[in-house]
Amino acid sequence: MTTNSTGGNQSDEGKLWGGRFTGATDPIMERFNSSLQRDKIMFKEDIQGSIAYSRAIERAGLLTAEEATKIRVGLESVLQEWTSGSFVVHPSDEDIHTANERRLKELIGEVGGKLHTGRSRNDQVATDTRLWLRSHLGATATWLLDLIKALLARAEDTKHVLCAGYTHLQRAQPVRFAHWLLSFAWWLRGDLRRLEQCYTSTDQCPLGCGALAGNPFNIDRKALAADLGFSSVMHNSMMAVADRDFVADYLYFATMLCSHLSRLSEDLSLYSSAEFGYEQLADAYSTGSSLMPQKKNPDSVELVRGKAATFIGRLTGFLCVLKGLPSTYNKDLQEDKEALFDVAFTLTDLLGVLTGVVTTMRVNTEACRAALSESMLATDIAYYLVRKGMAFRTAHGKAGEVVKLAEELQKPFSSLSLDELRSISPLFTADVSSVWSFESSVEQYSSDGGTGMAAVARQMELLHSFVESFKLGAHVENFAS
Amino acid sequence: MTTNSTGGNQSDEGKLWGGRFTGATDPIMERFNSSLQRDKIMFKEDIQGSIAYSRAIERAGLLTAEEATKIRVGLESVLQEWTSGSFVVHPSDEDIHTANERRLKELIGEVGGKLHTGRSRNDQVATDTRLWLRSHLGATATWLLDLIKALLARAEDTKHVLCAGYTHLQRAQPVRFAHWLLSFAWWLRGDLRRLEQCYTSTDQCPLGCGALAGNPFNIDRKALAADLGFSSVMHNSMMAVADRDFVADYLYFATMLCSHLSRLSEDLSLYSSAEFGYEQLADAYSTGSSLMPQKKNPDSVELVRGKAATFIGRLTGFLCVLKGLPSTYNKDLQEDKEALFDVAFTLTDLLGVLTGVVTTMRVNTEACRAALSESMLATDIAYYLVRKGMAFRTAHGKAGEVVKLAEELQKPFSSLSLDELRSISPLFTADVSSVWSFESSVEQYSSDGGTGMAAVARQMELLHSFVESFKLGAHVENFAS
Amino acid sequence: MTTNSTGGNQSDEGKLWGGRFTGATDPIMERFNSSLQRDKIMFKEDIQGSIAYSRAIERAGLLTAEEATKIRVGLESVLQEWTSGSFVVHPSDEDIHTANERRLKELIGEVGGKLHTGRSRNDQVATDTRLWLRSHLGATATWLLDLIKALLARAEDTKHVLCAGYTHLQRAQPVRFAHWLLSFAWWLRGDLRRLEQCYTSTDQCPLGCGALAGNPFNIDRKALAADLGFSSVMHNSMMAVADRDFVADYLYFATMLCSHLSRLSEDLSLYSSAEFGYEQLADAYSTGSSLMPQKKNPDSVELVRGKAATFIGRLTGFLCVLKGLPSTYNKDLQEDKEALFDVAFTLTDLLGVLTGVVTTMRVNTEACRAALSESMLATDIAYYLVRKGMAFRTAHGKAGEVVKLAEELQKPFSSLSLDELRSISPLFTADVSSVWSFESSVEQYSSDGGTGMAAVARQMELLHSFVESFKLGAHVENFAS
Amino acid sequence: MTTNSTGGNQSDEGKLWGGRFTGATDPIMERFNSSLQRDKIMFKEDIQGSIAYSRAIERAGLLTAEEATKIRVGLESVLQEWTSGSFVVHPSDEDIHTANERRLKELIGEVGGKLHTGRSRNDQVATDTRLWLRSHLGATATWLLDLIKALLARAEDTKHVLCAGYTHLQRAQPVRFAHWLLSFAWWLRGDLRRLEQCYTSTDQCPLGCGALAGNPFNIDRKALAADLGFSSVMHNSMMAVADRDFVADYLYFATMLCSHLSRLSEDLSLYSSAEFGYEQLADAYSTGSSLMPQKKNPDSVELVRGKAATFIGRLTGFLCVLKGLPSTYNKDLQEDKEALFDVAFTLTDLLGVLTGVVTTMRVNTEACRAALSESMLATDIAYYLVRKGMAFRTAHGKAGEVVKLAEELQKPFSSLSLDELRSISPLFTADVSSVWSFESSVEQYSSDGGTGMAAVARQMELLHSFVESFKLGAHVENFAS
Repeated sequence: MTTNSTGGNQSDEGKLWGGRFTGATDPIMERFNSSLQRDKIMFKEDIQGSIAYSRAIERAGLLTAEEATKIRVGLESVLQEWTSGSFVVHPSDEDIHTANERRLKELIGEVGGKLHTGRSRNDQVATDTRLWLRSHLGATATWLLDLIKALLARAEDTKHVLCAGYTHLQRAQPVRFAHWLLSFAWWLRGDLRRLEQCYTSTDQCPLGCGALAGNPFNIDRKALAADLGFSSVMHNSMMAVADRDFVADYLYFATMLCSHLSRLSEDLSLYSSAEFGYEQLADAYSTGSSLMPQKKNPDSVELVRGKAATFIGRLTGFLCVLKGLPSTYNKDLQEDKEALFDVAFTLTDLLGVLTGVVTTMRVNTEACRAALSESMLATDIAYYLVRKGMAFRTAHGKAGEVVKLAEELQKPFSSLSLDELRSISPLFTADVSSVWSFESSVEQYSSDGGTGMAAVARQMELLHSFVESFKLGAHVENFAS
Repeated sequence: MTTNSTGGNQSDEGKLWGGRFTGATDPIMERFNSSLQRDKIMFKEDIQGSIAYSRAIERAGLLTAEEATKIRVGLESVLQEWTSGSFVVHPSDEDIHTANERRLKELIGEVGGKLHTGRSRNDQVATDTRLWLRSHLGATATWLLDLIKALLARAEDTKHVLCAGYTHLQRAQPVRFAHWLLSFAWWLRGDLRRLEQCYTSTDQCPLGCGALAGNPFNIDRKALAADLGFSSVMHNSMMAVADRDFVADYLYFATMLCSHLSRLSEDLSLYSSAEFGYEQLADAYSTGSSLMPQKKNPDSVELVRGKAATFIGRLTGFLCVLKGLPSTYNKDLQEDKEALFDVAFTLTDLLGVLTGVVTTMRVNTEACRAALSESMLATDIAYYLVRKGMAFRTAHGKAGEVVKLAEELQKPFSSLSLDELRSISPLFTADVSSVWSFESSVEQYSSDGGTGMAAVARQMELLHSFVESFKLGAHVENFAS
Repeated sequence: MTTNSTGGNQSDEGKLWGGRFTGATDPIMERFNSSLQRDKIMFKEDIQGSIAYSRAIERAGLLTAEEATKIRVGLESVLQEWTSGSFVVHPSDEDIHTANERRLKELIGEVGGKLHTGRSRNDQVATDTRLWLRSHLGATATWLLDLIKALLARAEDTKHVLCAGYTHLQRAQPVRFAHWLLSFAWWLRGDLRRLEQCYTSTDQCPLGCGALAGNPFNIDRKALAADLGFSSVMHNSMMAVADRDFVADYLYFATMLCSHLSRLSEDLSLYSSAEFGYEQLADAYSTGSSLMPQKKNPDSVELVRGKAATFIGRLTGFLCVLKGLPSTYNKDLQEDKEALFDVAFTLTDLLGVLTGVVTTMRVNTEACRAALSESMLATDIAYYLVRKGMAFRTAHGKAGEVVKLAEELQKPFSSLSLDELRSISPLFTADVSSVWSFESSVEQYSSDGGTGMAAVARQMELLHSFVESFKLGAHVENFAS
Repeated sequence: MTTNSTGGNQSDEGKLWGGRFTGATDPIMERFNSSLQRDKIMFKEDIQGSIAYSRAIERAGLLTAEEATKIRVGLESVLQEWTSGSFVVHPSDEDIHTANERRLKELIGEVGGKLHTGRSRNDQVATDTRLWLRSHLGATATWLLDLIKALLARAEDTKHVLCAGYTHLQRAQPVRFAHWLLSFAWWLRGDLRRLEQCYTSTDQCPLGCGALAGNPFNIDRKALAADLGFSSVMHNSMMAVADRDFVADYLYFATMLCSHLSRLSEDLSLYSSAEFGYEQLADAYSTGSSLMPQKKNPDSVELVRGKAATFIGRLTGFLCVLKGLPSTYNKDLQEDKEALFDVAFTLTDLLGVLTGVVTTMRVNTEACRAALSESMLATDIAYYLVRKGMAFRTAHGKAGEVVKLAEELQKPFSSLSLDELRSISPLFTADVSSVWSFESSVEQYSSDGGTGMAAVARQMELLHSFVESFKLGAHVENFAS
């Protein structure tokens, strides 16, 4: 005996949603369940995978040469329909796999039904998604390299521009504007390493793993993987149909990249304020106000910052999908598509916008220079004393006394008399005047990674050489230096 | 002097994206910046807000009666175009506000330009979004109440069905199937309280706060708020244009609700497995396998579980947008739309699907009963001894000895002889046989909240009365009991 | 037959961890499983709950008056040991409940074992946590009100100080410094509403729900709840032992509050930069640099910003614990303690620090004033033309022409001649000079919520009255206006 | 003129917190700001970094050999104090760097003040954290490899045990228990790749980057990096002091690893339920109930599942710290410590516990076998027909008809007569009886990655060889196959 829904339904008669439950399907469930709106973006990869699979089962003797040819010609026709915009979606097409197989059978008849032999949508969707992402990663690497190039070009442009360097958003020490720009190029280099890690996760072939137990027709999975350009097969069928680590790796890569872009954006937002005034975004990347006629707002960089937050949410949400999921395929995994495609297309847009922003922004050299105040040379006073033999910690204290004296006398350091300085330490002599130069201050940072000109030039060389020799998939060589 | 982008561009000649930077606009930036695809969903609320605003500035003497009428007639025409599907979007329509104002001016001429007097898109978009959400919250409450009703109907249906109650997914004590169903109804009641908290956050009027400083034409904001059905005005203009707490509150409400639905879904997934077998979802909420002919998968509840994860990500992402944002409006806030609309429409679908699932699932009474094993009565042995005067902690130990003895002898408790029992405690007498009844075990939980029949009936009464008297906005009354 | 671990262990001989698996317990597992380090913070609430429970079972006839008294005297002794620091924790004390019951039995003998009759750690820990949080919420409300008071005091202080108001971090319109300060007070008022929502969730009694099925000894749960000061009992035992919504509600409240504090902190960080210079934090809330003698860093507000991020993670993590959890108690729920206690104690610290920061910061009136540039009056030019009858949209365009002209001539607006202005619109007459006053500009925002003096004064009145009459638990009255 | 806090304070007289603001420091701020409680864990790395730095500045001529020796001897003494437990923390020790330098100067006098020459806590803390994590990663790899070995040992153990494989938690196809166990080993292999990616991020030397601008004394950073065993220097000083990508990479690695562990735990939780009964955890990894004497709860795996959620929150929270942070060091970054140390120590515990769980669990071969129902052979019926030449899609339909027929007749497949089968397809002949064998079903999955014995044995070989040859830092070789 089962207590079924009849009673429940009877008491619900006359309910708006009563009708939904009487038929074989619930229209809300159909909409909810269908993934076609999202996964049709992979129409090409789905057909690419099917063509390769037809070859695999042909080799295994499950298709005659004639059948195999018929199937492949049919698949090419389906592809042609998609690319020409003439593919007609049916209401019952649950997903791209169903849609393509349905259409194939309409075109070539029952033999089309042989294509799915030993295959499941579980291994099929994982394969399609990996093919799609692998290709998108290549494009993403190009966009990313373009942004690094744009940063390098503007660094070249601004290598003589000095500006304030900040810690805690307080003026700290003078640095080259180019040095600041390059700091982001280095972060982006790290992002390319993460992109490669994601590429490695993605570049593994689940096809031939079936629903969960493997392939029962002894197909040659290595040959199939090679046919699709995968570097290796996945080694365990239960894991292969359940694994979405490559999607998580992608979302993490994208989130970290966007995090770096958000930090660049934050700086650009600050620096384009009236208060800093270091640069101004081109009109193409700004908008006006519907109320205030004088406004020019750096919307582009604010949007990037907002997207960085949304990406964190996408990563979090997907990690939460994976947590505690039982073995093999569960429908929860369908959430990967929305997160992946949304982030992937947004990310290339973001890179394009920021490349434009960086390339076209106007740098205000005078404003940068004007932000250099002598108080930023306080460390150099300590270094002066260190060079005269004083222990740094003591020199730091003495420099602090100079800061205090200058504040009390309301003078810049350079206007303090030698006597005034010597009242703090007898080590001060006439040559202290050499300290009052921002250029000299900057130039002393000549060690690797510093803001001195030679060190900055070395950074640019390293980055140029990295950009020129980068090749997706060639892991070790990429990050040799 | 500024070092602008010229140099950078020159060196980029021939680049695919070189062209983008020469014109006044970057097409990627336009796509990136435009929110119309998302916010056009609020076309009605945007016009509703504009009509109310026209009355406010008419009252303030900024429009003549004739102008005001012309504007309102024009706005009604724009609305009519949207509802009839004839509104033509222009490429330059950045957002719904711009689109509607542009169209209004096309229809009624320059007087349309008076509508925006003292208004900014900053207060306008906040108002539109609040109007939209307030209305959607009403609909959501209805769907939510429907699910509670469905749970109540099935609880009535299954109040005599006993099944295993679990802790740590281990069989613990027998409970009524209805008691388990009702546990979710109580959680949903809490969600309605959260929905009300969100309603309160939403139900405040930012219109008349301008870009950030307020309204300079002395309009009567209280009258304007009342006109739009808002309970109060927002009290500080800088906060009013920056505040998106109502969106966060909504996302939190939705995430918590979906969390509860995911727990129901987890149980339904477990209980529909062959191993538990307590119930089976209707075909309308299940799908088959492309490979395995015997499969019937409870996709619906797995999708709900997946969405619960995605919602957490949406909430997280948006909280991350808000964190550390400088005062008043920043473009990052535009991220609210994607999160809000996506979650809102998904949530009502989810509620619809689960209402269907609950209403139509078949409960397998025998399987429920079969899961009751005598080991689940071990607590009752301890209670038996307690009732005979033994301290509970001691009785718990004695019951443990009975468990061990029964395991050693490979007998159920009820087959242990009185002598065997008395070897553990002399308090065991012939009346111990009354302990070996699942019905009696369940009935002893007669205190409020327990799984005894009377206590379950009281729960149903309370919930029925709650459902029948619930009225959105009437906070105190709703949760009186 | 079972294939047990023997084989596995044998092959692992000589492994460092080999020994761990031979004994009855794994020390890592013990450390991992024990929650005492965290939950001992609730020693008082655990005893409070036990005392009330002893009364409940005494009323139900499970304890004699003598036994009950003995138990209560014993519990008071245990409490006394905790408060005097003499309680000795045993290695086997898994959690605070076990520790207290163990000690009780040492003190009063076997009768102590009667206390747990019909109770489970499942309902016990939920009760303790609710008691603890309810009390902590009261303290939190006080700290929160103190911060609102501090903002009000500084708003009173600075109501005559004008500064730049920003949108998109670009100078927008002049506002009162006090208006900016008050915007945060309004946000905090909303946080108090969320705190109350959390209070309502927390203020429900799970005690008497047992492990999952309810109480079998017919105790009076309403009386027990009242004894502990709870407003109501929880209505379903399975839900009551599984429910941690009150923890999620608390984490959400704390995250939103901290989000507002992070926005205040972001502004304070910006405004204390050399570039803005609006205010300077007191030394007590700043730190120096180990390298740069001149630095004074606003660490306090940066820490607040960082904590806002960490809180988002705490909320996310806990929501992720709850998602998809099977019915009733599962050990995963133990994660609630770490999140709750960490956030709760950090939050009160944060509130204390920011109250100090706000109270002691030095506002630099001149720097605020100096940030007002005439370009911020561009909207007022448009408003001037509107008041002369021009449609706002047209006036906005004309004002834009004035902005452009002033930029071309490199003059402030006030230096444009009437002829120059009239070349743009004949509506400009001599009275345009009244537009060039920041004070007048600000004063025109006299509608509710605006930055005009009267409107600001009204805000302060409303907030004062709110603060003075706020009473935790009196929901409706609190937010009457 | 500044409006300072005086007024504010006066009105606060008598407040409990009034006193806090009058002195130079606020005790809450001190507690809030201090990181020593957390970062003292890096006492060794801090001293290791300082010793290397002393060599670097000695080489650069900033220290005489004698001074350098004195400093190093002093540092060794400080280290000795820490390891012997005799280091005395001072209230003013803000962090581990301050504490160690303070103590050094106490021990060796003012020359100790030379150590910090050109160094900042910004590059120092980044160096310490990297050193600490690099070392912890090595230990983590060992624990991780141990768990893989434990999985391999139990797979060897159970390679002849058949059980049900699931998709959507519905019985799908028979698989080997070992195949299921190995699926997790493959995931863990991917985690080792992520660990290596994190190692690469971590293994870069920021020391010598100063506060933000670089090192002004021309120290040899490459030599310094080599001295500390780092593979490379960080190339940009502004990026080097701000970069915490290695922490994010670690948290991501840990979260993904724990996600995999949570999936194993979910399965173990399911499989140890009475309903599945595939295995039982050893007592050492289970706990009892305070109320129900018969209960044995798999707390260990539930805790793992809970920690997987908390880790997601830790990652999210820290990503949220990084988002939109301005250039170089900001105090928000201090949040890295809590997240890093908490996750790192919990993770090794988790690995230890699960290694124990896997090694000691009892597998119930009979229960596994009993879960195999003939309906799981439905796919094999389709494959039978495919092997007879039928197109798979048609065969899938025919097999579906067999399923239906068997259900109607309430017989297992093997009891259907040949006539009954032939009523569905004439291709059924007597050899169909070979289909009714779970062993044969499993054995057909002989392609790579399948659950056939040979394929499973190949997996084990590959994993053994991976485990034996794994070497941290030898990226390419590790993942050759």
